[in-house]
Amino acid sequence: MAAPSFPPGIPTSSPTASPTTSGPLSYEQAGVRYELIDPLKVAAQRAAAATAAHLAGHGFAEIAASRGESAYVVDVGPFHLASIVECLGSKVLVADAMKELTGRCHYAAVAQDTIAMAVNDLVTVGATPLVVQAYWAAGGSEWFEDRERAEALVAGWKAACDRCRVAWGGGETPALAGIVEAGRIDLAASCTGIVQPKERLSLGERLGPGDAIVLLASSGIHANGLSLARKLAERLPRGYLTEVAPGVGYGEALLAPTTLYSPVTEALWAAGVRVHYAANITGHGWRKLLRHPGRFTYRLHTVPPVPPVLSFIAREAGHDAADAYGTLNMGAGFALFLPADQAAAAVSVAVDCGVPAWVAGAVEAGPKRLMVEPLGLQFDADAMILR
Amino acid sequence: MAAPSFPPGIPTSSPTASPTTSGPLSYEQAGVRYELIDPLKVAAQRAAAATAAHLAGHGFAEIAASRGESAYVVDVGPFHLASIVECLGSKVLVADAMKELTGRCHYAAVAQDTIAMAVNDLVTVGATPLVVQAYWAAGGSEWFEDRERAEALVAGWKAACDRCRVAWGGGETPALAGIVEAGRIDLAASCTGIVQPKERLSLGERLGPGDAIVLLASSGIHANGLSLARKLAERLPRGYLTEVAPGVGYGEALLAPTTLYSPVTEALWAAGVRVHYAANITGHGWRKLLRHPGRFTYRLHTVPPVPPVLSFIAREAGHDAADAYGTLNMGAGFALFLPADQAAAAVSVAVDCGVPAWVAGAVEAGPKRLMVEPLGLQFDADAMILR
Repeated sequence: MAAPSFPPGIPTSSPTASPTTSGPLSYEQAGVRYELIDPLKVAAQRAAAATAAHLAGHGFAEIAASRGESAYVVDVGPFHLASIVECLGSKVLVADAMKELTGRCHYAAVAQDTIAMAVNDLVTVGATPLVVQAYWAAGGSEWFEDRERAEALVAGWKAACDRCRVAWGGGETPALAGIVEAGRIDLAASCTGIVQPKERLSLGERLGPGDAIVLLASSGIHANGLSLARKLAERLPRGYLTEVAPGVGYGEALLAPTTLYSPVTEALWAAGVRVHYAANITGHGWRKLLRHPGRFTYRLHTVPPVPPVLSFIAREAGHDAADAYGTLNMGAGFALFLPADQAAAAVSVAVDCGVPAWVAGAVEAGPKRLMVEPLGLQFDADAMILR
Repeated sequence: MAAPSFPPGIPTSSPTASPTTSGPLSYEQAGVRYELIDPLKVAAQRAAAATAAHLAGHGFAEIAASRGESAYVVDVGPFHLASIVECLGSKVLVADAMKELTGRCHYAAVAQDTIAMAVNDLVTVGATPLVVQAYWAAGGSEWFEDRERAEALVAGWKAACDRCRVAWGGGETPALAGIVEAGRIDLAASCTGIVQPKERLSLGERLGPGDAIVLLASSGIHANGLSLARKLAERLPRGYLTEVAPGVGYGEALLAPTTLYSPVTEALWAAGVRVHYAANITGHGWRKLLRHPGRFTYRLHTVPPVPPVLSFIAREAGHDAADAYGTLNMGAGFALFLPADQAAAAVSVAVDCGVPAWVAGAVEAGPKRLMVEPLGLQFDADAMILR
């Protein structure tokens, strides 16, 4: 989710809705009610924008184009400052359910997911993440009694920081009985970074026809679409234990930790690749490729392989391609828009970082539209109204 | 709560504990179980500290003395970067209860409280807060259906940003059914600022015998001690409607918004006052005056007037002075340690900012100890083991 854009948040399941056992499963059925949050979002965006003037009093200025993008950017003189706060969402509920079913603890994985939510958004603006703060709000002190779980959370958090080369500055671990449900935890992360040199800023000013689109592989569902995935589990006779591929259970597959893309974006800069724009493919799936405010046509000739857990979800939810690609990442967790003559180098850098990547298409002059040619799929401008 | 120190978090009420109707009310009875969180805290602190080395890879370095202090500080070259994430805690439960009792919405006030939790901690290190991010995690999209409440939250948040002259960068508004309780919201804020010039850093290197202690007035309970306050309400026949002063109800008094101290710390710097160290008096009350890691005796000759709501809580909970001053802010929300010859100027600057202040005592050579002479009260080094 994009911090400065007041996004509608992680889709939520309505606990009172009874699961249907057949027919397509829509986001509305999974409890997502964007219309209730959007008026607040608009009011908050307006109020937040009005506060930017305060920066002048300190001798600084916001980068106005960062409002509505994935991290908020301020010009502080020698470089830009980028900051963000991000929530993991409901993936912990899958981890909790799997613990009950299998006894296995997945909190190291969800720790990585939480950091990925923050870091992967922060790097879209061209920032190097420097400091992460942990926000772990438990339903009560008792949450921390499970030492294996608490230690996994710490270990997974540290490992993700190590992978992203960020300093873990500290954090907040409130016990919030009466606010957070007993036995649950709400995981979030804030991240601060800098854009240095300033020309590394990738808010899309340089995006234009002729640019290549490089897609970076996802590791699975990442941390978006979990409400839908959880709702689906209720329909399945074997629930999270259903096989999505030989020997791979649904719950286990859902809990594959989100790919961390900052090692790739750092390596790209170091290799001289100049990214014009980047999109973290989270909620709303590939519609995020339409995130840039400009009017361009994005034509894709290549699509990455779909992780089995995502094709399983799409099939079981009765999604057609438009539903699936408009909701889930379908194998592409991050998109880079860059000069065509650097696309092959970008793929090579990503692969060297252990992240499969593809030169998937190009930006063209034309109406705002995403065309996924191998699938005969098209998303128009109004498919991405949520920035 | 101090972000980088992995504090034990907001005290939490155990929902299963039945309220006692007489006798002193301790933190243990109010559900606070520090021993369950501390082992995690130690593990997290150790893991977090180990990640600091990553900053060298970016050409930067942490200010090691900021670990354990109220904000994490990194030297990024031309200035220092400070960051934090903070949770409001359980004060929203008082706002929700008062809404039911009186129909009045207090979400503008708790918005200010939330920003105060972050900003008041950030400024202790000498930082100028620049950007705030909102973290509003609701129990479901339905939370936002109450337009009056949602609008009050936005308006109060903006007003607090205006008062602190920070840019509201954006935020995250997840709907977390199954994690956050239905009808509730978890409010938190992250804040990023800079220490500029670097000599403004007030991590206490310059603190020493002869320094004066200036206390800044609190507006009431602020956002610490709310679990105790809520537990107490259960004991009172009229609950939150009990009068704590003529015409002032308990619930209303609890919801007085936390004083924002960044206008004072900014004005102090501008006036040439050089703060050696600062403490945000939150959890553990005046024991926070012992926060500095050095061995000094802090002797107070003056105590501020106690807000009626705090003397009421102390009396009703059966607290003696040690309990009360070791738990609540008792009228002093923030402490400044500075050169004695600047103490009067500091008071004058604070008063000009609308915050009553007192030259309350001095730092002396001697064992680590806080002596509150007007009350015959003493806290020794082991009273402040939670940093």
